[in-house]
Amino acid sequence: MSKENTVEQYFEALRNQNLAGIVALYSDDATVEDPVGTPVHMGKEAITEFYQQATAVKLGVKRLGDVRCAGDFAAFRFAITVPNANGPLVMEVIDTLKFKEAGKIVEMKAYWGNKNCKPVNL
Amino acid sequence: MSKENTVEQYFEALRNQNLAGIVALYSDDATVEDPVGTPVHMGKEAITEFYQQATAVKLGVKRLGDVRCAGDFAAFRFAITVPNANGPLVMEVIDTLKFKEAGKIVEMKAYWGNKNCKPVNL
Repeated sequence: MSKENTVEQYFEALRNQNLAGIVALYSDDATVEDPVGTPVHMGKEAITEFYQQATAVKLGVKRLGDVRCAGDFAAFRFAITVPNANGPLVMEVIDTLKFKEAGKIVEMKAYWGNKNCKPVNL
Repeated sequence: MSKENTVEQYFEALRNQNLAGIVALYSDDATVEDPVGTPVHMGKEAITEFYQQATAVKLGVKRLGDVRCAGDFAAFRFAITVPNANGPLVMEVIDTLKFKEAGKIVEMKAYWGNKNCKPVNL
């Protein structure tokens, strides 16, 4: 499976709140750092726990622009719409994924900060 | 200097073909991997050599969207227009920069592949 296909499957699973589908894309020894600078989730159990929150609610998820494949990595951006007390917020995130030979994701890093969260209707 | 300011200085120096200005933003022990998966340029001398090519010709450089700051990192995308025998090509690249305390860039990684290079007038 190409990196681009894995990225598409990742977003389809996110959209469908398919927790098992997301976790299946990761290798057993994978790490997730989201956002970068916060504690790293290591291994399938920790990664499952992390995505439980993301798949518990229906999120608006839209991948934007081309996937950039370089070496063992893919980088891309996407917009995620999250519910909020004062109206929904949209965040524009950049992710990098590192792949193993078997096509599994071995490392995910998500780059975003509070400054990248904006009211949807701004 | 904030990460966002350093990113702006980086693009201004690129636009002005200011080689010394670019290299000054890097720490002495910095690394540059562009594109990811190719040999890493380590240290100021190697980095100067790398940017000599990028500053030798006038490139169209436009940063796109917000800078994502997370932990010690900033991630952002930009479009770069390069001359080509059959008409100029535009590449849309995602960069990640890692910063040291003194505000210097200690690591640059550029994510792009041939698929991200397109004729300007497409």
